[in-house]
Amino acid sequence: MSRIIVGVMGPGGPVSDKLTRDAYELGKLIAQKDWVLLSGGRGEGVMDAVNQGAKSSGGLTIGVLPGGDKRGMSTAVDVAVVTGMGSARNNINVLSSDIVIAVGLGAGTASEIALALKAQKKVILVDCPEEGVNLFCKLAADQVAIAQSPSEAVSLVEKLFSQ
Amino acid sequence: MSRIIVGVMGPGGPVSDKLTRDAYELGKLIAQKDWVLLSGGRGEGVMDAVNQGAKSSGGLTIGVLPGGDKRGMSTAVDVAVVTGMGSARNNINVLSSDIVIAVGLGAGTASEIALALKAQKKVILVDCPEEGVNLFCKLAADQVAIAQSPSEAVSLVEKLFSQ
Amino acid sequence: MSRIIVGVMGPGGPVSDKLTRDAYELGKLIAQKDWVLLSGGRGEGVMDAVNQGAKSSGGLTIGVLPGGDKRGMSTAVDVAVVTGMGSARNNINVLSSDIVIAVGLGAGTASEIALALKAQKKVILVDCPEEGVNLFCKLAADQVAIAQSPSEAVSLVEKLFSQ
Amino acid sequence: MSRIIVGVMGPGGPVSDKLTRDAYELGKLIAQKDWVLLSGGRGEGVMDAVNQGAKSSGGLTIGVLPGGDKRGMSTAVDVAVVTGMGSARNNINVLSSDIVIAVGLGAGTASEIALALKAQKKVILVDCPEEGVNLFCKLAADQVAIAQSPSEAVSLVEKLFSQ
Repeated sequence: MSRIIVGVMGPGGPVSDKLTRDAYELGKLIAQKDWVLLSGGRGEGVMDAVNQGAKSSGGLTIGVLPGGDKRGMSTAVDVAVVTGMGSARNNINVLSSDIVIAVGLGAGTASEIALALKAQKKVILVDCPEEGVNLFCKLAADQVAIAQSPSEAVSLVEKLFSQ
Repeated sequence: MSRIIVGVMGPGGPVSDKLTRDAYELGKLIAQKDWVLLSGGRGEGVMDAVNQGAKSSGGLTIGVLPGGDKRGMSTAVDVAVVTGMGSARNNINVLSSDIVIAVGLGAGTASEIALALKAQKKVILVDCPEEGVNLFCKLAADQVAIAQSPSEAVSLVEKLFSQ
Repeated sequence: MSRIIVGVMGPGGPVSDKLTRDAYELGKLIAQKDWVLLSGGRGEGVMDAVNQGAKSSGGLTIGVLPGGDKRGMSTAVDVAVVTGMGSARNNINVLSSDIVIAVGLGAGTASEIALALKAQKKVILVDCPEEGVNLFCKLAADQVAIAQSPSEAVSLVEKLFSQ
Repeated sequence: MSRIIVGVMGPGGPVSDKLTRDAYELGKLIAQKDWVLLSGGRGEGVMDAVNQGAKSSGGLTIGVLPGGDKRGMSTAVDVAVVTGMGSARNNINVLSSDIVIAVGLGAGTASEIALALKAQKKVILVDCPEEGVNLFCKLAADQVAIAQSPSEAVSLVEKLFSQ
């Protein structure tokens, strides 16, 4: 049986210290649960921080890259999936994740949340601005949960997997 | 030089009469301007209505289909682009459109708007619920415009193309 | 009902005069039959020549581009489908074509022929080196036909469509 | 730094005992070298055998699946990348592989070899029929090597990585 994959999506650009800390902490907790971390794999913002966190606890990290080679990849990605498909790879991110956690919100992350809802996946929102919470709950309230912290997000994942 | 393509995105499932009427009207106006209509191509909801409207005025319609063949396609699609990629084709929809108009809002449409913003495209929202307007304006206010009707949407497109 | 699409695949780089002439002639004949021409859309080699030929007879030309914008596109493409997917778009080329004609053979073209055979499409080979003919006939003899000229290729397409 | 990925491509359908044995042996040897095995991930033919072989020696196995969920996956895949893209995922297989080994040859495998050559990857052919060897060497002789056995294929990979 294949391993459980938790997908963490979030902005790649310069992000706040809080987002970076939360993403790092979340990656660490995911690794401690022995789940595989899947992300967009780039070496900046939430994507980099969550991978660094997971590696700090010896987790396995998969990066699904938008480009046609590994340039710009996070140094904490173990296995690079090179798609060469740009943002079309966002759909692979969500289809491959048993559950999706979004940390923060940019346009790319918003597309991943929407694609996850379309694919009937559960999505946990961390550090999501009110406007995002309002829209995603309107689109599919029964698939969306809000977590106040990385550890609450992980508790929610556990609850969902034990159902 | 290739022709101007206006992409119209919108829910595929059963939609309200107002959405159907607006999508049909929008397709008609796009055809009258001699722009090419690009859509998700399926034979239901906004996708079907906008194509039927465009054909009613003799427009050229391109349908970028999610499936691996033409099953479920709108009867008003002239040229079927068969992607076999599911929702990953949403990114092709927006990259191929010189401008994106969203009519109504479901999870798939929300992903297309977000992908369009990520790709630095302009997006015009028609019949968009307040929660959608709020989020998309927060993500990229300078790329988003609100139209109260299909004809206002077409006026906005003209304004953007004359810039 | 959507229009018949004939996909013409072939090398993009510098190609021989014979390939260029045959591709141009083939595009012209396709347009005269009122079929839609679909190609990889780039402005060089077989791709450019076949589009130029089709436009010389007023045909409709669709270019399914590998890049994320229209740079490098053939000037004879009417409708640009911008995939941003690199060579993964080769599968869209073949899925979207009612029949595939390959003119010449490079690595990209070989992948398109193989993908077409995998998708159970018929493929007509024009100016195909012996090594290509041998392999593709071995893989799926009943899906492959050899044409000695553009006009023979078009006759074969007609025969297949009348079956 | 991300781990070395060896992609093994091969037919999914019913295959000969020799192909099954060679794929299994190759997977085992790849795992013993501590390389990550990447394959098309389906639970049949070469794809299944190579994954089973790799797991028999405790390797890490990545399956890049064509479908939109995990149905039909090899039981020996650790990490499932769910693309929902059909054969368009073949390009991801080759872009993600530091080197590609093909075992046997069907239409899908031929497309992967051709896409690999297009992407400037090295390809090692095992159990490849003469027609395949002839074509792929014609297309890009300097990127293709022939191995008489799984162990020779692994020696060739080592040689390439030490260059």
